[in-house]
Amino acid sequence: MKGIAVDAKPAEAPRDNREAILIAVASVIARRGIRGLRVEDVAAEAGVSAPLLYYHFGSRSGLVKAALEHASERAPSTALRTPSKQSAYEAVEAALLAELGDEPDVRANAVVWGEASASAVFEQELRPDVKRVTEAWCANVAEAIGEGVKDGSIREDVEPDQAAEVLITLVDGLCSRWLGGTMTRDRACELLRGALKQTLAPAA
Amino acid sequence: MKGIAVDAKPAEAPRDNREAILIAVASVIARRGIRGLRVEDVAAEAGVSAPLLYYHFGSRSGLVKAALEHASERAPSTALRTPSKQSAYEAVEAALLAELGDEPDVRANAVVWGEASASAVFEQELRPDVKRVTEAWCANVAEAIGEGVKDGSIREDVEPDQAAEVLITLVDGLCSRWLGGTMTRDRACELLRGALKQTLAPAA
Repeated sequence: MKGIAVDAKPAEAPRDNREAILIAVASVIARRGIRGLRVEDVAAEAGVSAPLLYYHFGSRSGLVKAALEHASERAPSTALRTPSKQSAYEAVEAALLAELGDEPDVRANAVVWGEASASAVFEQELRPDVKRVTEAWCANVAEAIGEGVKDGSIREDVEPDQAAEVLITLVDGLCSRWLGGTMTRDRACELLRGALKQTLAPAA
Repeated sequence: MKGIAVDAKPAEAPRDNREAILIAVASVIARRGIRGLRVEDVAAEAGVSAPLLYYHFGSRSGLVKAALEHASERAPSTALRTPSKQSAYEAVEAALLAELGDEPDVRANAVVWGEASASAVFEQELRPDVKRVTEAWCANVAEAIGEGVKDGSIREDVEPDQAAEVLITLVDGLCSRWLGGTMTRDRACELLRGALKQTLAPAA
């Protein structure tokens, strides 16, 4: 670590390097959790040196925060910001079901997200970041629900912010059960579809 | 540790001792998490020796499982098994809101529960225990919902098992947000009341 000013503002890593490192962090967290995260393991996984990681991310905690931000930027719900031909109801359903996707990178990001929330109970330092990404997720979903109230695909008495907050909290709970192996992914998706219908669908 | 057969089936601790130890485990987990749990800290908190803990609980993992079982036995939802003068809807609402109780012991048990679920992602060994206590919780709530369908306090088209599973998963998600400091307890209670009304209440 000699000669590297780890307390100074970390330098931005070159784009490709940074992406490779953040994928490596998610992969290590998916195997061991945030609390089992060692910077050395991330360095080995990304094929870079540990001092380089400290140089770019400042600290282990900086690495965790960057991984959470990265998971947030790549969350399936970000698709809600892109116009689509689906109704808003269908777009919300597709986006929330995709959070329970079984592709390794979606799953790894779900573990990063769950771990960051669970760790925030004990690591006050993480709370502002968890709060910020959760609020961004909630705002995306609430906005799409608001559009659904306008396009008629969502019941007109639905309050977008409240419905979005309940639904994303339910998705977090379902992810936790699924990732913890106490509920199948199919069952989690079935329960989510039912809850969406009950919360948002216009009376038949 | 000499002379103590830690691999043998652990001896049952005398009732008072056992209770004091399990309260100490919950308290240590509430401060540091399961992954920060050291048997020595529990021993210090309970005022007993670490070898005594190994003697009674077999291992660190045995201690965690006993704490989860203890949290499950003391969960507010167990009150649903006792007949009450409330309608079933009111009883379910009271029991689930009580899971978000701010008393130190309720809060400590909520942390134990959340930590066990989060740790189950990485510790396969914990999964059967987490699954068992979750299913027991779900069955209690589903039974009460079934009674509500009969007594008319709950909508007659509600499917008790499905509704119970969604509601307890939502409660877990809300607890996680509240304990992680990214949602106030008041907001969590408000969202839960709204979800209960929408999921269970008969049409006005």
